[in-house]
Amino acid sequence: MKTQYYAASSLDGFIAAPNHSLDWLLQFGDIEETSYPDFIQKVGAIAMGSATYEWILNNQIFTDNNESNPWPYEQPAWVFTSRSLPKIDGADIQFVSGDVRPIHQQMSIAAGDKNIWIMGGGELVGQFYDHGLLDELIIQVTSVTLGEGFPLLPRKIIQPSLILKSATTYGEDFAELRYEVPK
Amino acid sequence: MKTQYYAASSLDGFIAAPNHSLDWLLQFGDIEETSYPDFIQKVGAIAMGSATYEWILNNQIFTDNNESNPWPYEQPAWVFTSRSLPKIDGADIQFVSGDVRPIHQQMSIAAGDKNIWIMGGGELVGQFYDHGLLDELIIQVTSVTLGEGFPLLPRKIIQPSLILKSATTYGEDFAELRYEVPK
Repeated sequence: MKTQYYAASSLDGFIAAPNHSLDWLLQFGDIEETSYPDFIQKVGAIAMGSATYEWILNNQIFTDNNESNPWPYEQPAWVFTSRSLPKIDGADIQFVSGDVRPIHQQMSIAAGDKNIWIMGGGELVGQFYDHGLLDELIIQVTSVTLGEGFPLLPRKIIQPSLILKSATTYGEDFAELRYEVPK
Repeated sequence: MKTQYYAASSLDGFIAAPNHSLDWLLQFGDIEETSYPDFIQKVGAIAMGSATYEWILNNQIFTDNNESNPWPYEQPAWVFTSRSLPKIDGADIQFVSGDVRPIHQQMSIAAGDKNIWIMGGGELVGQFYDHGLLDELIIQVTSVTLGEGFPLLPRKIIQPSLILKSATTYGEDFAELRYEVPK
C-alpha cells in the first residue's frame, strides 16, 4: 500500500489556473492513452480537497445537458472541507476536516492492499507530506506554462530531496515524472 | 542557429529561491555528467539578466578565498540591466537594456552557426519568447520543491502548447525535458 500524489502539472508547477480551470489540460489527448488506467486500477481509496471536489461536480457531474453524470470513482473517497458541500447520490464519499493522520488510517484500512490516491490540491498533499504519509509523486508534466495558478506542492523539499525513479514521454504533450519521497 | 533556454528548475517551477540562492541545486552531482558539456560546446552567444550576472559574480567569480576566479564563459555575453554593474577584466561582456530584438540580431551575428543561450531569469526569457525569438527549452527538472522563488518562465503558453521532444533521467537528481517552441 502506497500513498500517491498523481496529478497533471504545467511545466511551471501549477495544477490549475487561477479560476480553477483545467482547460489548458483538457485540450490534450485521451486519458486512456496515459498511465491512468493502470494507476486507477490499483487505487483503493481517494482523498481530495474541496476545490478538487467542486471541480469534479461542475465539470464531470453537472454538465451542460441538464442531466447529471455518475460519480466517476468506485473507490471510497474522503473530501477534506470546512464547508458544507453538495452530496452525490450513490457515491461513497465522506466529508471530513482537520488532521489528516486519523483519516489516513481510515483510508489505509479501506484501501487494503491497494494504494491511496491524494488527488490534490497541493496544500492537502502537503499536509500528508508533513506527517510522513506521502510515498510517491507521479506527475504528468504537461507541455504548457500557466504563469500563475494553484501550486503543485507548496512545500520546501530540498534535503533530503525527492528520488527520481523514471521519466516517460507520452507523445509531445506529457512527460510523466515519478518520484519516491525519502523516509 | 537556435535560441535556447537551458536552465535547472525545481519540480514546482522555480529557478532560484527567494534570496537568489541555488544551494538546493548545488547539492547535486557534477555538471560534467549532465548534458551541459555537449550543450555549451554549441553555444556561440549568451544573454542573461542582471540577477543571473550578479549570482555568477558572487558565487563563481568572487569566492571566499579573496582571489577572483576567471569569467567562466568563452562566448560573448550580453547582460540586460538597467543598473550599473561591476565589470570583469578580460570577459567579453556587453551591458545592454531595452528591447531584446536588436540585441538578438547582434547575438545572432556573433553566434554564427552556433546557438544562443538565454541563461535567465525567466522574465528575460519571456521577452525573447514574446517576440517569437525563442526556439527551445532544455529544462533540468531537479528532484526538489522550493515552494516559492523566481519563476521558470512567467508566461502563459497554452495554445499552441510547447512540443515535448524528450525526457531523460540523470540519475535520481534530474529529469531533463526538451521542448520546441511552436512557430
